Amino acid sequence: MSLSMKLHVTNHLNRKLYPQTSERSSYTDYKTKIRTNPIYHRNPLISKAYKPTMHVSSSFSSCCPVKSSLIDPDGGALVDLVVPESERVKKILEAEALPKVRLTKIDIEWVLVISEGWASPLRGFMRENEYLQSLHFSCLRMEDGSVVNMSLPIVLAIDDETKERIGSSPNVGLVGPNGDLVGILQSIEIYKHNKEERIARTWGTTAPGLPYVEEVITPAGNWLVGGDLEVLSPIKYNDGLDHYRLSPQQLRKEFDGRQADAVFAFQLRNPVHNGHALLMNDTRRRLLEMGYKNPILLLHPLGGFTKADDVPLDVRMEQHSKVLEDGVLDPETTIVAIFPSPMHYAGPTEVQWHAKARINAGANFYIVGRDPAGMGHPTEKRDLYDPDHGKRVLSMALGLEKLNILPFRVAAYDTVDKKMAFFDPSRAKDFLFISGTKMRTYARNGENPPDGFMCPSGWKVLVKYYESLQAEEASLQQAVLTT
Amino acid sequence: MSLSMKLHVTNHLNRKLYPQTSERSSYTDYKTKIRTNPIYHRNPLISKAYKPTMHVSSSFSSCCPVKSSLIDPDGGALVDLVVPESERVKKILEAEALPKVRLTKIDIEWVLVISEGWASPLRGFMRENEYLQSLHFSCLRMEDGSVVNMSLPIVLAIDDETKERIGSSPNVGLVGPNGDLVGILQSIEIYKHNKEERIARTWGTTAPGLPYVEEVITPAGNWLVGGDLEVLSPIKYNDGLDHYRLSPQQLRKEFDGRQADAVFAFQLRNPVHNGHALLMNDTRRRLLEMGYKNPILLLHPLGGFTKADDVPLDVRMEQHSKVLEDGVLDPETTIVAIFPSPMHYAGPTEVQWHAKARINAGANFYIVGRDPAGMGHPTEKRDLYDPDHGKRVLSMALGLEKLNILPFRVAAYDTVDKKMAFFDPSRAKDFLFISGTKMRTYARNGENPPDGFMCPSGWKVLVKYYESLQAEEASLQQAVLTT
Repeated sequence: MSLSMKLHVTNHLNRKLYPQTSERSSYTDYKTKIRTNPIYHRNPLISKAYKPTMHVSSSFSSCCPVKSSLIDPDGGALVDLVVPESERVKKILEAEALPKVRLTKIDIEWVLVISEGWASPLRGFMRENEYLQSLHFSCLRMEDGSVVNMSLPIVLAIDDETKERIGSSPNVGLVGPNGDLVGILQSIEIYKHNKEERIARTWGTTAPGLPYVEEVITPAGNWLVGGDLEVLSPIKYNDGLDHYRLSPQQLRKEFDGRQADAVFAFQLRNPVHNGHALLMNDTRRRLLEMGYKNPILLLHPLGGFTKADDVPLDVRMEQHSKVLEDGVLDPETTIVAIFPSPMHYAGPTEVQWHAKARINAGANFYIVGRDPAGMGHPTEKRDLYDPDHGKRVLSMALGLEKLNILPFRVAAYDTVDKKMAFFDPSRAKDFLFISGTKMRTYARNGENPPDGFMCPSGWKVLVKYYESLQAEEASLQQAVLTT
Repeated sequence: MSLSMKLHVTNHLNRKLYPQTSERSSYTDYKTKIRTNPIYHRNPLISKAYKPTMHVSSSFSSCCPVKSSLIDPDGGALVDLVVPESERVKKILEAEALPKVRLTKIDIEWVLVISEGWASPLRGFMRENEYLQSLHFSCLRMEDGSVVNMSLPIVLAIDDETKERIGSSPNVGLVGPNGDLVGILQSIEIYKHNKEERIARTWGTTAPGLPYVEEVITPAGNWLVGGDLEVLSPIKYNDGLDHYRLSPQQLRKEFDGRQADAVFAFQLRNPVHNGHALLMNDTRRRLLEMGYKNPILLLHPLGGFTKADDVPLDVRMEQHSKVLEDGVLDPETTIVAIFPSPMHYAGPTEVQWHAKARINAGANFYIVGRDPAGMGHPTEKRDLYDPDHGKRVLSMALGLEKLNILPFRVAAYDTVDKKMAFFDPSRAKDFLFISGTKMRTYARNGENPPDGFMCPSGWKVLVKYYESLQAEEASLQQAVLTT
């Protein structure tokens, strides 16, 4: 009952914040070639224990932030760049009269990220000074002299023709991939898009085959346009997962509503196995030992662009829900939501962005694993990054001083106890390491991993996905053979 | 007369600080293939106005820093890593018993840089945490939470065989290119030398043909060794230019002796033309207008590794001396000294190092020009860096807040007034831009630049150099033809 109450509240808030206007954006086809039908239509992951209070429901407004004991967002106040309803018609007319910039699907992901305040205090796509600070210092200096972390350049590329069309207009209208009006970029600045330098400084390599580079940067134009963003209405994907896309403001309300005195975030882009769960539960135990009364876990899968062989978002969300339904993680102290950023696979540089964005959502503890945001080197037989560097760089990062970094303890399959356990070097031979690649291979081949590796219902989700993938491939092959 | 007094004092100080012990290092052959005979044996550039005072001469000691109104060095105190004379014998015996690391000529340049405190508060070659901070943040965070700029990784590479030989020894002895004992690296840490990542993050490109990469990084080993440096005796080159190699401590004494209330540094690796001089004199005028009573110019040519087509150090030093002798710059308010760092040609990243090191020498104003530390892209027909980025990045750089950045005003040859003047866009057609490349082409072809471009005696130095180069080339060709 309390679950449905919660959903009611969420829906109510959504209606209030996200009215169903005609100019609403919709991006359902992206990365869902294989699974066009969302397998998920409600959010079973929001705690049964949650009771909406007057405090939360009465004060929920974008203009009057709730008093909270949560960590302050970067820059002091959460950025919210959605045009108030009262100004919407005026802004639409304004946008319609402006030169237009056509956005890609991944540009839209960034529009969502910026407009909800994940990148606070950033108020739009970066102008050149912000871009240069990001590339050189992974930080932005504020007017008061304080420094906030900003390790990824959040930029909007345009081609020569678009630049020409913009001419000397100080503002541009932003148009989605389907031609719908999305927002306005004010007081713009156009500057050179030196792709080579951007790639080298962000990834520490210019080797061909970096997924974000191939998908986003290589095909992009030779100019970047920065400016202050205004979004005409909240970005919605209508993929059945929007109710998971809680903004930093909504998450802060949730944490406040649950009277969290510590929030620990777990970023992931893979299914949750029992080793992850062990770590998250152990973290909660340690926080309780430290004297916190009510630490809340933010299980926060990345929901934007991922590389082709990663498990798609809808499958991961279903898998995560099984993990909570099975009680492997406690729904009372866990919030599952989607982190809407695209993935760069930029290792030590990107992990800072992952951590920084969670500060804005209210997390004051961040769990960092081995080789975060890492991948294999695209052209050499080695990891792209030293698996230890992400954790080290994050621990030393400028502008993240207020965040507590919790290094991942290594969990592996204990073949004696037949469960995932923290690795004990004194009996190393008893432990089996099952990587993400290995896990996907098991699922693809229809093999079962060792008992206790993942809750059975969660595992079934993966097996079902890989079966559907194989069926899809077989029918594609059949189609090719027929034609 | 006061000139000789000054030289006397300098020599006296040198004797005191740099005793002529047998293990003294000597590196004369580096970059002097063409001009093995130094053309320079005294320093005519030290001001005639300088009068040594009791204040300076009585307190000159490495252990008792002089009270000064100069800007504080990074980290609060200047690093000085030369072993005190009383411990020298003991340290030599200690070093002799250690596993050895053989240094290259450029490693020695870094040993000099570190040991004299140019990189303060760095006390040795970087360990991995420092290296990572340098690559990711161009900064180091100190124990007290403060941040100092450190944009270039200052590292020592070793090969597999050397790593093997070191084994688990906590300390290593450092041996110069000629086999002489140079110093000790204490409490070492050996870590992977990921050359690709180092190059990409430092230069923003991995294109082949970057001079420092080809000279230093590509041939280097796959490991880096960091640790605390102790130098057995001050590094000397014995190339006739050592008296120009004033340490940060010596420069601070000079500035104090002249009662400087502002020090403005001018980094260069090219001959000084009248446009430079105009800028430097104008800067002094502006500082006087700001209320400073005695601004002193530090004319500070870079003296370490430079690319093959740059004008060699000894020629540049002779050219600079002519500029002062001719009165183009005022010897009373100018100190000329060599900045011993090697050149990276890493543009916006390197200019921070150039500025930071001058803080340590007491400069609180730094003049930054167009495209500092820049060069042409090694494989594309364009500048490697946006010529504007160096200035912008430097102005925003973390850890350089206490330094005043003075942007270069563009000077060009005014064909009407027949002199170098600040560019006036309202009559752009009257101005002629003479780049470093153009200047070298004039000199190489024996052509004269327009009257007023450079003082004639300075120009003669360049012409003489290029003539000697051509004679050298001709005799080499002759030798080849003969054999």
